[in-house]
Amino acid sequence: MGTPNREMTTLGVVTTTFDQVGTGSHDSEDLRGRVLDAARRARTAATTFGPLPQSRKDELLLTMADRLVAASPTLLAANAEDVELGTQAGLPAGIIDRLVLTDQRVRDIAEGLRTVAALPDPVGEVLRGRTLPNGLELRQVRVPLGVVGMVYEGRPNVTVDASGLALKSGNVVLLRGSSSAENSNRALVAVLRDVLEELDLPADAVQLLPCHDRATVRHLITARGLVDVVIPRGGAGLISAVVEQATVPTLETGVGNCHVYVDAAADVDQAIPIVLNSKARRPSVCNAAETLLVHQGIADRFLPAVAVALRQAGVTLHADESTRALVPDAVAATDEDWDTEYLSLDLAVRVVGSLDEAVRHVARHGTGHTEAIVTDDVRAARDFVTRVDAAAVVVNASTAFTDGGEYGMGAEIGISTQKLHARGPMGLPELTSTKWVVWGDGHTRPAS
Amino acid sequence: MGTPNREMTTLGVVTTTFDQVGTGSHDSEDLRGRVLDAARRARTAATTFGPLPQSRKDELLLTMADRLVAASPTLLAANAEDVELGTQAGLPAGIIDRLVLTDQRVRDIAEGLRTVAALPDPVGEVLRGRTLPNGLELRQVRVPLGVVGMVYEGRPNVTVDASGLALKSGNVVLLRGSSSAENSNRALVAVLRDVLEELDLPADAVQLLPCHDRATVRHLITARGLVDVVIPRGGAGLISAVVEQATVPTLETGVGNCHVYVDAAADVDQAIPIVLNSKARRPSVCNAAETLLVHQGIADRFLPAVAVALRQAGVTLHADESTRALVPDAVAATDEDWDTEYLSLDLAVRVVGSLDEAVRHVARHGTGHTEAIVTDDVRAARDFVTRVDAAAVVVNASTAFTDGGEYGMGAEIGISTQKLHARGPMGLPELTSTKWVVWGDGHTRPAS
Repeated sequence: MGTPNREMTTLGVVTTTFDQVGTGSHDSEDLRGRVLDAARRARTAATTFGPLPQSRKDELLLTMADRLVAASPTLLAANAEDVELGTQAGLPAGIIDRLVLTDQRVRDIAEGLRTVAALPDPVGEVLRGRTLPNGLELRQVRVPLGVVGMVYEGRPNVTVDASGLALKSGNVVLLRGSSSAENSNRALVAVLRDVLEELDLPADAVQLLPCHDRATVRHLITARGLVDVVIPRGGAGLISAVVEQATVPTLETGVGNCHVYVDAAADVDQAIPIVLNSKARRPSVCNAAETLLVHQGIADRFLPAVAVALRQAGVTLHADESTRALVPDAVAATDEDWDTEYLSLDLAVRVVGSLDEAVRHVARHGTGHTEAIVTDDVRAARDFVTRVDAAAVVVNASTAFTDGGEYGMGAEIGISTQKLHARGPMGLPELTSTKWVVWGDGHTRPAS
Repeated sequence: MGTPNREMTTLGVVTTTFDQVGTGSHDSEDLRGRVLDAARRARTAATTFGPLPQSRKDELLLTMADRLVAASPTLLAANAEDVELGTQAGLPAGIIDRLVLTDQRVRDIAEGLRTVAALPDPVGEVLRGRTLPNGLELRQVRVPLGVVGMVYEGRPNVTVDASGLALKSGNVVLLRGSSSAENSNRALVAVLRDVLEELDLPADAVQLLPCHDRATVRHLITARGLVDVVIPRGGAGLISAVVEQATVPTLETGVGNCHVYVDAAADVDQAIPIVLNSKARRPSVCNAAETLLVHQGIADRFLPAVAVALRQAGVTLHADESTRALVPDAVAATDEDWDTEYLSLDLAVRVVGSLDEAVRHVARHGTGHTEAIVTDDVRAARDFVTRVDAAAVVVNASTAFTDGGEYGMGAEIGISTQKLHARGPMGLPELTSTKWVVWGDGHTRPAS
């Protein structure tokens, strides 16, 4: 176990660094105290942010964007330290790639803040309203959630993206990023906090939590009454650990075991590009297809043709027996393949006897993210749309469209695969709650 | 420990009865299996209920209403057994009172189902929709949550109310009522299941879980993937136990430590009836006021007068020193009083120096249910409304209005005090999720 070196950082959060990354929780009570203390300061900051008018929030985000670009040399220097440490520690090239900041990436991050600044303010929107027969005036109004906790891996851009979305929706944010991005995240958060102070706003609206101890996450997700919601972003393991251990409400994001079902009545000329785009456009994102289901009535016409296209794109097929009879070079699928979110150029393939069998396969193995059917039969399309239970159900289009930007939300904090509160891409409105505001003039309720 | 007698009931759920009520969990693995099995059958039933058109659901609820009235003699006989057992076991009169069914109460329960049948179907409602620049047609549609678990105490009417609301919103329901109402609940559920079968619908859409073992609740609230949401209804202890131990998403209902703040600029003639109505109309419900906060600038005019009115209504005051200087017969408040949901004719009273102090008291002690201000000062009213974070914030009216029926929702399954998904009275729409439905014509997403 390494020796902890406590230090009060410029971020105002006492952090503990260890000589070795990932050492245990010997100091857990103290760590808990620091997390709860950060949460309490966030709560206080939230009382300032909740009522903040849109003009002030937009000014804040635009200033942050400018200052991040201006601080690019500092940010890149801090990031270089992370990249150096990660390389020394032997992190895979893919992870290093997501970690790296460049001048262009910093400009992109700043541009993201400007995009969010240009979006309408969700806070104060009146969702419903009426005057009751007794004269009471009733309005349901959007209000911020309050203190939003983010638990995420890898990419430092999440630090700024999440802060921008949270602040614009009147929330404050507690960030728990990856230890591999610690220097980058600190540098980014330092810029954001400087801007808050510059604009006479509480710097504690954006706080970075210690990232070297997993116990930080546990303390954050059990801070009931202090933290209003925790949003985990990352792999399936991180998300399910957070959701199962949390006593604070959570918003699940992003595990996508997505299917494309090619119906007997599919147009093969549409089906091939849809499958190709769903799988290979960006295999590492959650809306990528992981399993192809093909109706037996079209299998011999469709499978050999799509296999050629997929092979050219570098995709490995993991196929059932019926598929392998038509595509002999496919790898034999195991039971595990149907439940695997590859996030790579791999695709499970199965022939089904009917639409009903496809729906049941999706119900059993899907994660409720995005499910697509390709068909020219309107009854099959309606049936699939009605019976499949997922955040997005798609007819004759690629699964890759499930995305806040594509849906016209301007920006997203993640894609929810849960059923409560928000389902599908989550933008600014999904970071709010509501409040009933009731105006009377001495009204009392009669006995019933 | 009693000897378990297994029996297959007419409800299709294997229940275990014990010679002694409330004995332990020696059979816990078996119990878990039975709860999960019930949940699996509910999931299957849910696939039928999700797509059911409104006409079929309304026919179901109206038939259930008729059959319940017709079965009144059987229901009252079963209920008499519960009342007899409860009386022998020495249950308090208040609990016995809530347990008792009469012909009139059965007619009221049936009428509740007819009210729900008359409400619009939330399922299929299009919340948002647009055609994207690329021609993709996008709609966000309300869909059922799926399998709803209800955990509740005492009153047998909840068995039918919750079933009616769940079924109308396309869901199926797993009911876990109080053991003290076991015979009543079984008789009610038997009627509902008979009607389901009569109309060729799956009886497993309404299932009663074993009620004699607390482990049932634990198995229900951890059945992730089988149960979509659990709604606890009852005391604060039940609710927080469910919410903290659940891995299934929960909808918290009903703990209300509600405040009335009488501002310096209050109209005393309005303030007295508002306080009286908020406290004494029905002290046992969650929207009743538990604490009165009075601005020091109006205390000497207001407190002696309101104390007279409250005393006449039988209310005991638990007051701070400043209040007792003006109302000498008030009981001295302890720190606990500020956090107590009395649900009785008791009221905590405190004099505050400012609106700010009132807001901070509410933030510290409130449960986010309903908070009221009485004032003629428009700036004070706006300030209170903006700064107080609760499901309902009320100006110049009684806290007693926070109710689904009063808000025009027709019926409610409870009042949510959480911030995610639903806040305030929950009617049919709050028992739904959403689904994005995307129609294309061979659309693929360009590389970005």
